[in-house]
Amino acid sequence: MTIISILGGTGHEGSGLGLRWAKAGHSIIIGSRALEKAQTAAAELNAKLGANSVRGMDNAAAAKEGDIVVLAVPYSAHAATIESVKEAVQGKIFVDVTVPLVPPKVSRVQMPAAGSASQEAQNLLGPNVKVVSAFQNISAEHLKDSDHPIDCDVLVCGDDKDAKAVVIALATDAGIKAWDAGPLANAVIPEGLASVLIGLNLRYKVKSSGIRITGIE
Amino acid sequence: MTIISILGGTGHEGSGLGLRWAKAGHSIIIGSRALEKAQTAAAELNAKLGANSVRGMDNAAAAKEGDIVVLAVPYSAHAATIESVKEAVQGKIFVDVTVPLVPPKVSRVQMPAAGSASQEAQNLLGPNVKVVSAFQNISAEHLKDSDHPIDCDVLVCGDDKDAKAVVIALATDAGIKAWDAGPLANAVIPEGLASVLIGLNLRYKVKSSGIRITGIE
Repeated sequence: MTIISILGGTGHEGSGLGLRWAKAGHSIIIGSRALEKAQTAAAELNAKLGANSVRGMDNAAAAKEGDIVVLAVPYSAHAATIESVKEAVQGKIFVDVTVPLVPPKVSRVQMPAAGSASQEAQNLLGPNVKVVSAFQNISAEHLKDSDHPIDCDVLVCGDDKDAKAVVIALATDAGIKAWDAGPLANAVIPEGLASVLIGLNLRYKVKSSGIRITGIE
Repeated sequence: MTIISILGGTGHEGSGLGLRWAKAGHSIIIGSRALEKAQTAAAELNAKLGANSVRGMDNAAAAKEGDIVVLAVPYSAHAATIESVKEAVQGKIFVDVTVPLVPPKVSRVQMPAAGSASQEAQNLLGPNVKVVSAFQNISAEHLKDSDHPIDCDVLVCGDDKDAKAVVIALATDAGIKAWDAGPLANAVIPEGLASVLIGLNLRYKVKSSGIRITGIE
């Protein structure tokens, strides 16, 4: 059984992924800056699941305990959270879900100087951490009901092929179709696509636009 | 009747769009650096159409004559072609289809310093040209047979709302669903997505992967 720690797991995106992975049989740790918030979120997920497979910890403990560490914090907390878990995640798969939104123009693609948030994560964590970029385009609307089918694919970017395969399998566990979308340098696309989809939501008055890859059986 | 000039229209992408727009009743000019090549390509399209609605001109004459000018050249010819038609396209809608591929790693997203090819075009042409970024993700495979349904959407980016609406209507004329994907700053997404789709084609052994927007009726 894989232990998946979700830093920032009290948010909609992180808790939605946690719920689906717990349902698929994984052991989940919800991480938060505040231990109490993490424990409350974990208890809520356990109540939904009718099980006891989700634990709450502060981010540092969660990062240490997890086999795979997922980062799902707002971009404003991205660098600081990464710095705080840098030692704990060495050698592990680190899944960055962060979208580098720059308020107030969140529907405008505005990448950090490194090229993407995921590339920033790799630069901060160093070469021994297998950073994989994924899940940015899945609306939390879709995730919160764990039986809801998800009409959106996931583009998975990273420089470690095996780590990408693990993350693609995790997407499958969550009921989501995922694709190997190339090296970490390509993470600008799913991250920036999140801003494009926010713009489509506003312009076309919907809650959760998404994308599907076509032309592949 | 709108006159649409397609610079680099002898290539697969440009001639495919020209064929579909001619079928929809537009007057098409195929532009090329070499007049003779343009005239040959125009004659081939007219033969396919059983009509006489396509003309061939050199790029400079094509840019001058067109109401709307479409640029569909390889990225290596992007800046030079733009400079050569700069005066002729002032005040017009300029549709940039160019993908800034950097061989040999064409499946790696590698944007120019300006942020995207379309942003480069806007910078070179100045503020009086309505640059619209579109059609990068439509495989030429799909376009060449004008009756073939296209299972791929188009993301349309630009800073002029009316110009975007014109280009979205042109996509509809070509049998393609198009979306207003925000400002020209967002053009990095469809341009970079082209590299991601090239990578998917290679990795999953298909010829023409594409994308669909989901969650909007």
